[in-house]
Amino acid sequence: MDNFTFYSPTYFVFGKGEENNAGHYVKRFGGTKVLIHYGGGSAVRSGLIGRVEKSLEEQGILYVELGGVKPNPRSGLVYEGIDLCRRENVDFILAVGGGSSIDSSKAIAAGVPYDGDFWDFYSGTPITKALPVGTVLTIAAAGSEGSGDSVITREEGMLKRGASGEAIRPVFSILNPELTETLPPYQTACGITDIMAHLFERYFTNTKDVETTDRMIEGLLLAMINEGPKAVKEPGNYQARANIMWAGMMAHNNSCGVGRSQDWASHGIEHELSAKYDCAHGAGLAVVFPAWMKYNYKHDIMRFAQVATRVWGCHMDFSNPENTALAGIEAFRNFLRGIGMPLTFEELGAKEEDIPYMADLATGDGKIGGFVALAKEDVEAIYRLCL
Amino acid sequence: MDNFTFYSPTYFVFGKGEENNAGHYVKRFGGTKVLIHYGGGSAVRSGLIGRVEKSLEEQGILYVELGGVKPNPRSGLVYEGIDLCRRENVDFILAVGGGSSIDSSKAIAAGVPYDGDFWDFYSGTPITKALPVGTVLTIAAAGSEGSGDSVITREEGMLKRGASGEAIRPVFSILNPELTETLPPYQTACGITDIMAHLFERYFTNTKDVETTDRMIEGLLLAMINEGPKAVKEPGNYQARANIMWAGMMAHNNSCGVGRSQDWASHGIEHELSAKYDCAHGAGLAVVFPAWMKYNYKHDIMRFAQVATRVWGCHMDFSNPENTALAGIEAFRNFLRGIGMPLTFEELGAKEEDIPYMADLATGDGKIGGFVALAKEDVEAIYRLCL
Repeated sequence: MDNFTFYSPTYFVFGKGEENNAGHYVKRFGGTKVLIHYGGGSAVRSGLIGRVEKSLEEQGILYVELGGVKPNPRSGLVYEGIDLCRRENVDFILAVGGGSSIDSSKAIAAGVPYDGDFWDFYSGTPITKALPVGTVLTIAAAGSEGSGDSVITREEGMLKRGASGEAIRPVFSILNPELTETLPPYQTACGITDIMAHLFERYFTNTKDVETTDRMIEGLLLAMINEGPKAVKEPGNYQARANIMWAGMMAHNNSCGVGRSQDWASHGIEHELSAKYDCAHGAGLAVVFPAWMKYNYKHDIMRFAQVATRVWGCHMDFSNPENTALAGIEAFRNFLRGIGMPLTFEELGAKEEDIPYMADLATGDGKIGGFVALAKEDVEAIYRLCL
Repeated sequence: MDNFTFYSPTYFVFGKGEENNAGHYVKRFGGTKVLIHYGGGSAVRSGLIGRVEKSLEEQGILYVELGGVKPNPRSGLVYEGIDLCRRENVDFILAVGGGSSIDSSKAIAAGVPYDGDFWDFYSGTPITKALPVGTVLTIAAAGSEGSGDSVITREEGMLKRGASGEAIRPVFSILNPELTETLPPYQTACGITDIMAHLFERYFTNTKDVETTDRMIEGLLLAMINEGPKAVKEPGNYQARANIMWAGMMAHNNSCGVGRSQDWASHGIEHELSAKYDCAHGAGLAVVFPAWMKYNYKHDIMRFAQVATRVWGCHMDFSNPENTALAGIEAFRNFLRGIGMPLTFEELGAKEEDIPYMADLATGDGKIGGFVALAKEDVEAIYRLCL
């Protein structure tokens, strides 16, 4: 295990009906004038936005609203949000939605007190100051409710980039699994894939002696394997939704990823797909991650055999562990297929001819990946495994 | 899963040499005049206290010191600490040691700004205000470095009682596994037992549909089973120490215990043993917990069979799951024996004739335990299973 620091000061409020206490928590964390930032009209039609408004009014808190956040949230709306907050003297951003609404809220929160272009933060400038962000989560997937990370797509060139900083970690997050029950199976499955991908990005490490975090990751993967298909088959299964929602937060607040190198190449490789074709991030990961595994498993066959046996229940082939490693990757693919995820470029609507362009963007001037460092040619080969 | 809130705002600094940054973190969290509170002379002789003093001096932070914390920390020293802090205008408590030093520090921190007797907090009065507490952890066991809990023994009547509150949760905790390498095997094993007991207290629940937290607990137990014996056999094994240290924090910060009822009867039953005979808390738990399991497993045979198969690798007896449940309890006993823990009253130095007295104190006016509610007669029967 390597040295590390771990800091997760978000106040989590979990359970049925808790969105009705949003106003209470905004007040507790010092908000007096709020921007409610959300996505589509469904949050309005379902009455969720109305309940949040009411809870703010009960606490005497003023608010303005900005809807329209899209999956793979765009810089255009962030600029609009920053202008609105400055004009209205907003001092607290309340995200209502999934990872997209939360990431867009974080970008606005960092942009308001900053003199320059907020995109600087997504180009390497550290975030040192931001308005406080609270969240009412409606999709279990991104883990953004408990992380200091945000991913935004710049319309110009459809460039998808991330920013991180303690200042944009939510001060509170309200997690009501009921709010996820209206998600259609496909989106639910995308969320499950994203959560599992967050776990795998941490699992594939070159750091030795990481039994505790290995076991935590494996436990969370096992929970997703058990609960995920239930939520896809029965969208109204509260308990499955609840288990997935907590696993989604734990998968990405990094308590199971501390003290070890992590990979994250698959996320980079996927980002080019969702930027280019505007597909769901989880769907892109379902295509990319098994291909990444197939391309890289020989780097550490025993680690792949370990996850195959401990998580996928594969028989350990002691005379040829490579068989076990490959069986684990196949089990992951079968699982993804079972919950309705795409596994190929064709199913995703991606095109072979774009591969060189995407590989170029994904790798930029260097290599990506903490487990295996991938050059442009490697990323191209991984894309080709998705055909 | 039940509704819950979860808040763990402690800043964790983990790894080699980090105690040399104690002053930096005291300053970051606003301390200007510190009480360094610790246990025996070994912390002084090893040079640890000297390194902490130096790091405070480098930041221009003043300090006073109070050593002498004993295992099962006493109220007398808490009163002394409160007086000292008031006299010296201390505004920050820095615990250097294990759970005892940290718990004693928390009691002092709550007592300083309180007009009444600090023991009120250990008799049910909520803690609303306390000086900030930081820790430099030297024993992986109690999980006090990441919790808002404290247990103190009042000399008068040797009454061992707990208090909880957000205000006494450490603002930062420095976890350097190197500092635990000098612990003798017996104390190491006591810590391992305590950590596993914290996990089992959460595992035995009547709440249904808790797959995510079940899997997290099982993962942490598996890590302890793998790493624990290594640290007992090779005290200088840094990596085993590191894995145990992080597991110890995760076992008790409650991220794996949220949304489910918990038991905690074994801790109550044990507290009377360590209060009466001044034995190590972990040693007392090694005697009590398997007996508690034997007495209560019929309440939910499948839960005991689940942990037996998932954690202890027992063969599932589908025709008679009770066999599997019992095999799991036996495996736990064998594990404890293997790391050198006592399993009986005799080995602990406890006496049969004290059973009625201890059962009386443990249950007070009512029943204890969230999994099975135990009356005085039940607790007596559990003590008798330890003979």
